[in-house]
Amino acid sequence: MADAPADIESLIALMARLPGLGPRSARRAVLHLVKRRGTLLLPLADAMREVGTTARECVNCGNIGQHDLCAICEDDRRRNGQICVVEDVEDLWAMERTGAFRGCYHVLGGTLSALDSIGPDELRIPHLVRRVEDERVSEVILALGATVDGQTTAHYIADRLAGVQVTTLAQGVPVGGELDYLDEGTIGAALRARRAL
Amino acid sequence: MADAPADIESLIALMARLPGLGPRSARRAVLHLVKRRGTLLLPLADAMREVGTTARECVNCGNIGQHDLCAICEDDRRRNGQICVVEDVEDLWAMERTGAFRGCYHVLGGTLSALDSIGPDELRIPHLVRRVEDERVSEVILALGATVDGQTTAHYIADRLAGVQVTTLAQGVPVGGELDYLDEGTIGAALRARRAL
Repeated sequence: MADAPADIESLIALMARLPGLGPRSARRAVLHLVKRRGTLLLPLADAMREVGTTARECVNCGNIGQHDLCAICEDDRRRNGQICVVEDVEDLWAMERTGAFRGCYHVLGGTLSALDSIGPDELRIPHLVRRVEDERVSEVILALGATVDGQTTAHYIADRLAGVQVTTLAQGVPVGGELDYLDEGTIGAALRARRAL
Repeated sequence: MADAPADIESLIALMARLPGLGPRSARRAVLHLVKRRGTLLLPLADAMREVGTTARECVNCGNIGQHDLCAICEDDRRRNGQICVVEDVEDLWAMERTGAFRGCYHVLGGTLSALDSIGPDELRIPHLVRRVEDERVSEVILALGATVDGQTTAHYIADRLAGVQVTTLAQGVPVGGELDYLDEGTIGAALRARRAL
């Protein structure tokens, strides 16, 4: 027999599809919600419906916003000729949290991957090439992960973008990083990219 | 500046209040949802609204159901004179998954705890005493955790319920348990409660 009412069981099944929640923690989370119906469950339902009906992908850069163009693409002050290329929207948000970048973005939607058979056309790379041709772009900053797939993608994009300056994030010691906890690759890269003090 | 649209940020803040999700994993879960608006986010919003408007506590036992009386309390076949006392609704669900108990339940809503100043009146203990007096109860089974607070609560309830048989779950080796991974307390309890084969 079912151990909880049917509608609670279906809510648990849906919650279990969230990353970071398994069947057991989904059950615990739902029970937590049911005990806080007015203060958490119903507000959460409303917030989800709100986001679900208004959120959409920016047709220009792939960011999540509420209109066809996201707030960044619509902001004239950010059209400074720089495009920062990121793998996914969470990377865009991470860049924005730094407050250090004042240009526009381009979200690829992943990295090239032979294993997962993801080629340039599965990503938004052709779109990026068109943007570089159409907009007045002076610099494309590749902010991709320092992984094999990320670096393969970076090299592929740099090859496709002739005639525009292509840069990539610096590699080195992270802020707060202690040398004896860092891998040799990072320390080697930081040594090669050393700068005068 | 905000790194995501305001309505997404408020959804993240609400999700971060779920047990098992912190601010970072809530952000990841929300992005996962936003990318699956039609297949997951909106169905989840609907399921939450449904549960939020229909779920309620059973006035008799404290179980979660859709009416004033839960499905178990309404089921005549389950009025067999046994009441199983559990700490919380998740314990009731766990008991139901075993399929081994065919009586009714009583959900305390926690355990007695001097540290958290939870006394008998904060739990549903007076209500349990009334039920034992009013209903034809032959046995009260205490299915409380084998913790200090759980056992304190069990002893307190047994003292309050004079004239009715009060039993508690057996302690022993769990199914699939290997002796060398078990603590001495469990092995000692299993030895004292040994039975003829």
